[in-house]
Amino acid sequence: MAGSVATDLTAFSAEALQRVRDTTPLVQCLTNGVVMNFTANVLLAAGAAPAMVDIVGEAGPFAGIASGVLVNLGTLPSGQPDAMLEAAAAAAGAGTPWVLDPVAVGALPVRTALAAQLVELRPDVVRGNASEIIAVAGLGGSGRGVDATAGVEDAAAAATALAESTGGVVAVSGPVDLIVGSGRSVRVANGDPLLTRVTGGGCALGAVMAAFAALDEDRLDTTAAAVAYYTVAAELAAEQSTGPGSFAVAFLDALATVTTQTVAERARFDVG
Amino acid sequence: MAGSVATDLTAFSAEALQRVRDTTPLVQCLTNGVVMNFTANVLLAAGAAPAMVDIVGEAGPFAGIASGVLVNLGTLPSGQPDAMLEAAAAAAGAGTPWVLDPVAVGALPVRTALAAQLVELRPDVVRGNASEIIAVAGLGGSGRGVDATAGVEDAAAAATALAESTGGVVAVSGPVDLIVGSGRSVRVANGDPLLTRVTGGGCALGAVMAAFAALDEDRLDTTAAAVAYYTVAAELAAEQSTGPGSFAVAFLDALATVTTQTVAERARFDVG
Amino acid sequence: MAGSVATDLTAFSAEALQRVRDTTPLVQCLTNGVVMNFTANVLLAAGAAPAMVDIVGEAGPFAGIASGVLVNLGTLPSGQPDAMLEAAAAAAGAGTPWVLDPVAVGALPVRTALAAQLVELRPDVVRGNASEIIAVAGLGGSGRGVDATAGVEDAAAAATALAESTGGVVAVSGPVDLIVGSGRSVRVANGDPLLTRVTGGGCALGAVMAAFAALDEDRLDTTAAAVAYYTVAAELAAEQSTGPGSFAVAFLDALATVTTQTVAERARFDVG
Repeated sequence: MAGSVATDLTAFSAEALQRVRDTTPLVQCLTNGVVMNFTANVLLAAGAAPAMVDIVGEAGPFAGIASGVLVNLGTLPSGQPDAMLEAAAAAAGAGTPWVLDPVAVGALPVRTALAAQLVELRPDVVRGNASEIIAVAGLGGSGRGVDATAGVEDAAAAATALAESTGGVVAVSGPVDLIVGSGRSVRVANGDPLLTRVTGGGCALGAVMAAFAALDEDRLDTTAAAVAYYTVAAELAAEQSTGPGSFAVAFLDALATVTTQTVAERARFDVG
Repeated sequence: MAGSVATDLTAFSAEALQRVRDTTPLVQCLTNGVVMNFTANVLLAAGAAPAMVDIVGEAGPFAGIASGVLVNLGTLPSGQPDAMLEAAAAAAGAGTPWVLDPVAVGALPVRTALAAQLVELRPDVVRGNASEIIAVAGLGGSGRGVDATAGVEDAAAAATALAESTGGVVAVSGPVDLIVGSGRSVRVANGDPLLTRVTGGGCALGAVMAAFAALDEDRLDTTAAAVAYYTVAAELAAEQSTGPGSFAVAFLDALATVTTQTVAERARFDVG
Repeated sequence: MAGSVATDLTAFSAEALQRVRDTTPLVQCLTNGVVMNFTANVLLAAGAAPAMVDIVGEAGPFAGIASGVLVNLGTLPSGQPDAMLEAAAAAAGAGTPWVLDPVAVGALPVRTALAAQLVELRPDVVRGNASEIIAVAGLGGSGRGVDATAGVEDAAAAATALAESTGGVVAVSGPVDLIVGSGRSVRVANGDPLLTRVTGGGCALGAVMAAFAALDEDRLDTTAAAVAYYTVAAELAAEQSTGPGSFAVAFLDALATVTTQTVAERARFDVG
């Protein structure tokens, strides 16, 4: 059965990418200052429309009209936490799918307290590395900031528990990405280590998940499709790079130009 | 007559670029976090000196010594709106030319209220897409954030009304840019769609307009020269790009290396 | 004698780079929004781990566990000055080496007052252009923002006085970099003008100095090694660039791929 489902997911991934490109979802990002530029460029390359609306008084109203919302806790400049709560509540109220990226939660106090509030608003997708997912699931945190010290499979139980408590999807990033939904899980075995040598390599993926979540389809499927598209593009970019600088450039080109057929051919799903 | 004026403008564009490169105008930018890096790199490539001085207590004094000032409402982090009012007032008082870029005004409330205050300080140049110019002109707003939904020519009447009320120049960005001053207008038909696939493609143009406005010349002419230089460089970059990543890199190279002769040869002005 | 010391420094530079790559120092950056992305990418390319933790309540605790800390006064968004004082005090208390980059100090009032407070916390390294170092040393300020108007050698006396008062190292950036410690100084004659055409070219060097300072070695030596590594990579990048855009890309590649042998072969130290 796993095989047949994987075949469906492969076809769906190609279709989902085409639909994102055709519909230009408007993705609101409340994200960290390190990766705002890269995230916006990734979304533009993917065919989506980025809008970094992250201040109180605008974040909520905009979340009501956006196609998807990303809330990334990477730096939390002054005023942004309140805007995040405003946006998440508005997104939940309006039925706008939203993605939570709990950067360094567990290791640092301000963001950990904020993440606790945000998780109660039931994010449609939570994306993080293993340490972050374990921390968010309340199963105990570790890690030294933004690095993953736990392995992806170490976080499988935490991801399942978190998915059950939010009612959404949880994605654990790593060499093989694990995506867990209610009663189902998928692993995606694409990507390249160079993606970890460019700041925002993980953060921008959360924004792409929000773009794909805008499709009115099963969120585990859209999240897996986003991961496959993103990590296949990383593979193509790595093939023509001589370091992290040229990789980042080639990655944006690949996101914009990879065909849906190539994504389908190269995506390596393992459905559990 | 249109022909002879266009010829003058062509020669002036080449001369203006040379003078910017020779004089290294100091351009203060109070702009959004998404494009700060790209904007600074564009100014450096153009031969100008960027300075992102955007906090209360420094923004005003610096506007008094800067060659030109950009006020871009893209994200409005905490404290920046007050610094913008401080900078705009100081620029107006010191005779420093300043450019207002009313990103997403009309669609979002905080920036719309701020734009109303800033317009009263009579910006020397207002640059935006058609929806934003229509909104700022008070003729009714629309749009879904940073995208243009109205066409450039739809904004011609609004641009003229706004230019009359500020006494300055209004530039409407689009496939063909429209620049309106008191009693005159110019269209510039250069550029490439890839410029819209790189975040900050429009925002950084506002900074280049501020650099060219530092020349003590007619502001409609300097604004048209800035647009021609910028969009000709985009054409050169597009010719050697394979996607938005490589385009952004080639664009910075082209801004730094395009000759004044090439700008003059390729610029397509239409003077009305 | 200068010759033999220079030979030692050459060997040390190669060794220090290898050790940074082997140990992945965790570098906390409280820096300006213009260069956050580039700085993080430079650190990743160098083999270090960046963490832009710059808010009150997190900056201090993190400085206690980081390998090195950078405090760069380039933009000072709301809340960041207090976080900088928190981080610097915690770093000093925990023995974490920290680098102060006093961008535009002397020319602008808010940052100048903050720099006075930070210098009292005795930064392990102060890095700036000549105008900034002169201003911080209290010998009188000048400059028009972020540009150096004084030459490097004009700042030699100021650098020596500042190094004596902080008990640390002072690095003056320019065509030939001057690094001053207690009783010793080194000049490094590598680099390329293109490094000044990319925003953050100087700021990111401060972060690399923090990464090298994490090695438990003489700070003048680690600072000189950081400068040599960084500026040799700039030379390699310039050799294959056609402008500032392609230079920035090639520079990140070169930082990631330059061999320790090449750094040793090309480094041009002059020990005084």
